[in-house]
Amino acid sequence: MHFNMKSTSVKELLSGNLLLQEVTVNGWVKTFRSNRFIALNDGSTINNIQCVVDFEEFDDSILKQIATGAALKITGTLVESQGRGQNVEIQTKNIYVHGIADPETYPIQPKKHSLEFLREKAHLRIRTNTFAAVMRVRSALSFAIHNYFRQNDFNYFHAPIITGSDAEGAGEMFRVTTLDQKNPPLTEEGEINHKEDFFGKETNLTVSGQLEAEAYAMALGKVYTFGPTFRAENSNTSRHLAEFWMIEPEVAFNDLDANMDLAEDFIKDVINYILENCAEDLAFLEKRLLDEEKTKPQAERSDMPLIEKLKFVADNNFKRVSYTEAIDILRNSKPNKKKKFSYPIDGWGADLQSEHERYLVEKHFKCPVILFDYPADIKAFYMRLNEDGKTVRAMDILFPGIGEIVGGSQREERLDVLKEKIAALGIDEKELWWYLDLRKFGSAVHSGFGLGFERLVLFATGMGNIRDVIPFPRTPQNAEF
Amino acid sequence: MHFNMKSTSVKELLSGNLLLQEVTVNGWVKTFRSNRFIALNDGSTINNIQCVVDFEEFDDSILKQIATGAALKITGTLVESQGRGQNVEIQTKNIYVHGIADPETYPIQPKKHSLEFLREKAHLRIRTNTFAAVMRVRSALSFAIHNYFRQNDFNYFHAPIITGSDAEGAGEMFRVTTLDQKNPPLTEEGEINHKEDFFGKETNLTVSGQLEAEAYAMALGKVYTFGPTFRAENSNTSRHLAEFWMIEPEVAFNDLDANMDLAEDFIKDVINYILENCAEDLAFLEKRLLDEEKTKPQAERSDMPLIEKLKFVADNNFKRVSYTEAIDILRNSKPNKKKKFSYPIDGWGADLQSEHERYLVEKHFKCPVILFDYPADIKAFYMRLNEDGKTVRAMDILFPGIGEIVGGSQREERLDVLKEKIAALGIDEKELWWYLDLRKFGSAVHSGFGLGFERLVLFATGMGNIRDVIPFPRTPQNAEF
Repeated sequence: MHFNMKSTSVKELLSGNLLLQEVTVNGWVKTFRSNRFIALNDGSTINNIQCVVDFEEFDDSILKQIATGAALKITGTLVESQGRGQNVEIQTKNIYVHGIADPETYPIQPKKHSLEFLREKAHLRIRTNTFAAVMRVRSALSFAIHNYFRQNDFNYFHAPIITGSDAEGAGEMFRVTTLDQKNPPLTEEGEINHKEDFFGKETNLTVSGQLEAEAYAMALGKVYTFGPTFRAENSNTSRHLAEFWMIEPEVAFNDLDANMDLAEDFIKDVINYILENCAEDLAFLEKRLLDEEKTKPQAERSDMPLIEKLKFVADNNFKRVSYTEAIDILRNSKPNKKKKFSYPIDGWGADLQSEHERYLVEKHFKCPVILFDYPADIKAFYMRLNEDGKTVRAMDILFPGIGEIVGGSQREERLDVLKEKIAALGIDEKELWWYLDLRKFGSAVHSGFGLGFERLVLFATGMGNIRDVIPFPRTPQNAEF
Repeated sequence: MHFNMKSTSVKELLSGNLLLQEVTVNGWVKTFRSNRFIALNDGSTINNIQCVVDFEEFDDSILKQIATGAALKITGTLVESQGRGQNVEIQTKNIYVHGIADPETYPIQPKKHSLEFLREKAHLRIRTNTFAAVMRVRSALSFAIHNYFRQNDFNYFHAPIITGSDAEGAGEMFRVTTLDQKNPPLTEEGEINHKEDFFGKETNLTVSGQLEAEAYAMALGKVYTFGPTFRAENSNTSRHLAEFWMIEPEVAFNDLDANMDLAEDFIKDVINYILENCAEDLAFLEKRLLDEEKTKPQAERSDMPLIEKLKFVADNNFKRVSYTEAIDILRNSKPNKKKKFSYPIDGWGADLQSEHERYLVEKHFKCPVILFDYPADIKAFYMRLNEDGKTVRAMDILFPGIGEIVGGSQREERLDVLKEKIAALGIDEKELWWYLDLRKFGSAVHSGFGLGFERLVLFATGMGNIRDVIPFPRTPQNAEF
């Protein structure tokens, strides 16, 4: 049997090109109504193909096996539909049951399931309309990202996942090891003997590919990573994952302004891609969000429907505001004066909290905001010091409802300044020997940023919890599947 | 300063569209000849732009800083070149030195470096022509892969990297943990208390995303992964990495024949993509390989130059041979009769060694070979048992000079057969509860394969060691950078 031969996808059938022809389609039963109408879906589109069954022509033993979740092969003639809700349907001639789904035990029945319930069934939740739509949009966004960079002459670069350096120091890391856990080899001093580990040293899962991407940018010019990164932080929030995917472009000869231009152009391009290529899935997700928000008080509902919000981001300039301006705005804001902020803004130098970012984006500017030129003290060592000696060329992009979606900077390209900053932090120069080499040999202005992919998917799909936009989420106490 | 403004890439300059215009280019000095000719490269192409300097018009202090590896910004007029070797060149008006590269200490001088030497300098080796060409081809191949699947209506699916299940059992795994290594928490029985680890259980780095991809294929129909996978095997060979990237498509309703069709069509498509889009880099790599092989005895040289070999694969059918036929061929082969194989082929059932695969591909068929229908005993439990009860619907694709590049199978879709195989292996069904669910609910014929990305890059670039086709290789005792 050559199963895929001559079968047609639901998407292709619905396009109507094969009218009056005999067609074969494989898929799963969404619903079976009145012993007559099978709604079949194969994942190629959010829409189903209706297969009309004349139950007098089929054995009861076959009909009994047709239930939500069953896998079928159906052959019949594609005709214009007389009923409402679809343009075409199949007059069923033949049904082959690949596999049944017992309604007594199959959990994905055609009714409303909570997202929490479905998280426990991450291997089956993809069979719901919501998750199939989210994951198709996720896939389209991934492609849009690769496509954008390819068209703009970037080279895709795979940063290492297992890393021997903890240079970025961005939070806690996962250790990677093959040492015996119960009886690890010890040195004479009684310490763990890392020389006997697989890599001959302590290794961790990467928190960022940036430093390595810089090495590649200083030869290939324009590069980007798109790979998994990790944080061993005990954050059980709707915005954090222990394992997530990140996009990190790095461009030689770009300063911070060019970096902001790139980030904004990039985000708009990929949003436009899904607006053009995922219209049906986005319409479904927009309706889902509206339904969900009906139960919420007015103040907690979205300002705009999903697609309008995406178009708004794609069509409007992001507001660029220096940290110093932002502090002024916040200091003079109503919530600050009325002491509504948990962290009141007294003066220059404070790190911005989520409440401040939300105020700026959602209340004050009502659009995506790029904050730049942050105090050096609250940002990473590799960011370029401004001439004022107290701010660095950092930028964060803040999105309504999401918060920080991009963090980036112009990198410190001056060897002496970088060495001073490393020394001030007490980092051993030897740890960063190769990173310093990039400043010794052919150094130049360069910039880059990191975009958390799942936060972009959250924004694009209107979902509320980051666990619902990645296939198998990894969070504290949870690595099932 | 807005550094990227109005600058033009070397690739764009060499296209000749900007003749007689004033242009600005940023890049790194490849060579500086006769105090007059700067060959500048920015990574956008293997070729350099020649910048002609009238040394009488520039300070000695500037000219002294121009050496191999220095980063420059050059402004001048793009003109037709009078010299040989290039069509256009820049009449230099202005030179800005971004960063010098002291010839006394900069390791990447314009001379031949051994690949072994460069491996120790993985942060700088990308500045050589060879590695820049390899990594541009690698990037193009990555895009070709995403593009192929997108055009064929596959959804890209991110398999989890940290996994709580060791179901595939494909070799040794890396443990991922945040437990105190020296004083791990113990249970009352004195065992490691995994409940106190980050995920509340033992976790490892994934060896394959296949099982999770199957879950997604059984809803979205056609999916693929493209992500890092890991093997904690102490294999110090030119073909093995501890961390490598793998592509794993999985398609519902595809049987093994359709799976072979997909794999062959896919490989040909991505090879054609680089033939069309990486002509200059491939020409460079072809020449590099010819030069390298000049020092080797005739018998060890490639049969065909690189580009001819790639075209051969793209244009010719892969030979499909059952395991049983292959055993017959091998049994009757000259090396077997003359006892030249380290593992003589006596009869049916033996696992094929690299020497056998090479004989079939390089001596007997002289083309890529797809072997299929292997003995069940030497293949994984999830492969579909044939009606003969002793072979499974497995396939391996073997490439000349590379060996196995693809391993795949039709999956066992029958719950009872799968349960029997799991029981026979002594695996606890509970470990695979969710994988078995896929057979309980809406099961269907499905197939997929895994392609080791670095092996494809090896083949495409003609490089000899897998450490030279990934930016920062991870191998036993080596996780630098």
